[in-house]
Amino acid sequence: MTSIGSPLVGRRLGVVGAHGAVGRETLFLLLERGVAPDQIRAFGSPRRSGETVVIESPHGAVSVEARPLQSTADDFAGLDGVVFAADSKTAREHAPRAVRAGAFVVDNSSAFRMDPETPLAVPEIETTLGSASSSSRLFANPNCSTILAALALDPLHRAFELRSVSIVTYQAISGAGQAARDELMRSTRDVLDGRDPTAVVLSEPTAFNVFPHESPVDPDSLGCEEELKIVRELRRILQFEDLAIDPFCVRVPVERCHSQAIRVTFAEHVERTRVEEVLANARGLRLELDHPPTPLRAQHQDMVLVGKVRPSLDAEIRDGRTDSFRLWLCGDQLRKGAATNAIQVLERALGAR
Amino acid sequence: MTSIGSPLVGRRLGVVGAHGAVGRETLFLLLERGVAPDQIRAFGSPRRSGETVVIESPHGAVSVEARPLQSTADDFAGLDGVVFAADSKTAREHAPRAVRAGAFVVDNSSAFRMDPETPLAVPEIETTLGSASSSSRLFANPNCSTILAALALDPLHRAFELRSVSIVTYQAISGAGQAARDELMRSTRDVLDGRDPTAVVLSEPTAFNVFPHESPVDPDSLGCEEELKIVRELRRILQFEDLAIDPFCVRVPVERCHSQAIRVTFAEHVERTRVEEVLANARGLRLELDHPPTPLRAQHQDMVLVGKVRPSLDAEIRDGRTDSFRLWLCGDQLRKGAATNAIQVLERALGAR
Repeated sequence: MTSIGSPLVGRRLGVVGAHGAVGRETLFLLLERGVAPDQIRAFGSPRRSGETVVIESPHGAVSVEARPLQSTADDFAGLDGVVFAADSKTAREHAPRAVRAGAFVVDNSSAFRMDPETPLAVPEIETTLGSASSSSRLFANPNCSTILAALALDPLHRAFELRSVSIVTYQAISGAGQAARDELMRSTRDVLDGRDPTAVVLSEPTAFNVFPHESPVDPDSLGCEEELKIVRELRRILQFEDLAIDPFCVRVPVERCHSQAIRVTFAEHVERTRVEEVLANARGLRLELDHPPTPLRAQHQDMVLVGKVRPSLDAEIRDGRTDSFRLWLCGDQLRKGAATNAIQVLERALGAR
Repeated sequence: MTSIGSPLVGRRLGVVGAHGAVGRETLFLLLERGVAPDQIRAFGSPRRSGETVVIESPHGAVSVEARPLQSTADDFAGLDGVVFAADSKTAREHAPRAVRAGAFVVDNSSAFRMDPETPLAVPEIETTLGSASSSSRLFANPNCSTILAALALDPLHRAFELRSVSIVTYQAISGAGQAARDELMRSTRDVLDGRDPTAVVLSEPTAFNVFPHESPVDPDSLGCEEELKIVRELRRILQFEDLAIDPFCVRVPVERCHSQAIRVTFAEHVERTRVEEVLANARGLRLELDHPPTPLRAQHQDMVLVGKVRPSLDAEIRDGRTDSFRLWLCGDQLRKGAATNAIQVLERALGAR
């Protein structure tokens, strides 16, 4: 949220996928940090070529022209940093070009997340940024659910050593894109007005409904793609290759912010207050003990809220200690789960120079 | 859903708490089964005394007059069965009076659920109905979340022996009563019209939001009352006193139908298809493999939908078998979770005579 002193001010920056939910949020956050509109080069998909993106920034409404990617040297020439908020195909084709043009690049797609040469970066977790001597100029942003969970799980793992993790999600509809978000609003009004809800963008009606995550189901594990991403990426971020982890992902009629009911088991027995202490001191998290985190409380902020820390109800408690806990976490998946994380990575990369 | 041949037709029946969500649903189901309106005696709280309840039954709109409980012998005289859909205090005071007046009584409150003399009844689970020689005329309806989970867990336990259960819930707002349901609809429209959502009935805004269950938190376990009910009641229903079970309960902006993300661990390794076979043959359940169950699909029906059966993603699979599975379940908490279950118990009790 600090707009003063961002190392991005004065830099020339690119945003690919400027019409999408994450692209728009990225533009908003850059403007919020004081980056001048004429320092930003926005790219949209060819079919929306020339369509201006209007951002209601803290400094007033700003129009940003979005050009198509031309695949010429001009695209990224002179840019210091580029955020890709497009699909994997676009990232695979154009992100290496942006790197070759001299920019630091952060990609939001899953294209490079499991590439060992590309840091899977969460700036609060130093180990994810690559070694200081690393010459990487391309960084992958983890999946939004992964980032939110990692902020709690990494410090807990360092403190008490994780044995197993279960993550059951309550994911906002805007995670499926701007069109899905618009469908939620439109179909909710339809239901209130006595009409049947339509389901065009997603396979299930979103209004007053919940449903297992819409990403394709892997025929081997029967997990959906979203669940498998969380497994793979958390293992990489925590540097814990055989971590026992079992996510179950569900969409809920929430506009923005993902929530997660997490159950952790540790290698040692600890007091609840020690778990809370670790979470209270964790970077990027705010421990809320007075009232439970909710999506409405967490939205439009960079901090991820965590609370409702309690021993699992089937845990054996001895001398006030146990090895299994529940916690509840809510974070804005468009901000810390995507745009904020990407911008923080760029700030680290450009601030270090 | 069978309205033909219900043993309740021709009986004289009482419904206590006729203005509430469960009371209204009970009246609807009695009328749907062909019980004549003049055979029904409805009771409302004194403050709504004389307020007529209008039910849109399959046979047209029916007005039912709701009288206050007088605490005289007249209240329950001549009734064959009474469903209590009121609070625990009302049940403790009046349910024994209805039994003494000669009626079979099913109570929806938590007043008698842990009383060893009172069957905690789910008719699909024969062991919960008390022995054939039992003279019990008072039955307790389990908590709505308990009933839905029990329909899947009891047959699975008999088949493979449960080792541990985790239940993470997505509970409909109407579970908190008619006023909460009305607030969901009103505040959702407020948000769509650009106004701030109000939270008067529940502690958190319900529109486009999710939040941990609102029931009071137990200071010892830090579980909320809803979670502790599920633990206690499932252990009793499954006759498994030290079952390891850890529910985590959350409200979602769904009008009716609770959903549950369940994780089970068995004493033995089994194939997924065997788990599905057990669920397909379970009474009161419908296994949906073609599309995932949702609250919208499950609402206004007595069957509970179950699907998305898969090995846990951290489970070790040998020869296609494992001991840990996920499943996803949706059921109408006002029907099978409350009114339908109560009516089925009455049907069993009165049909046996």
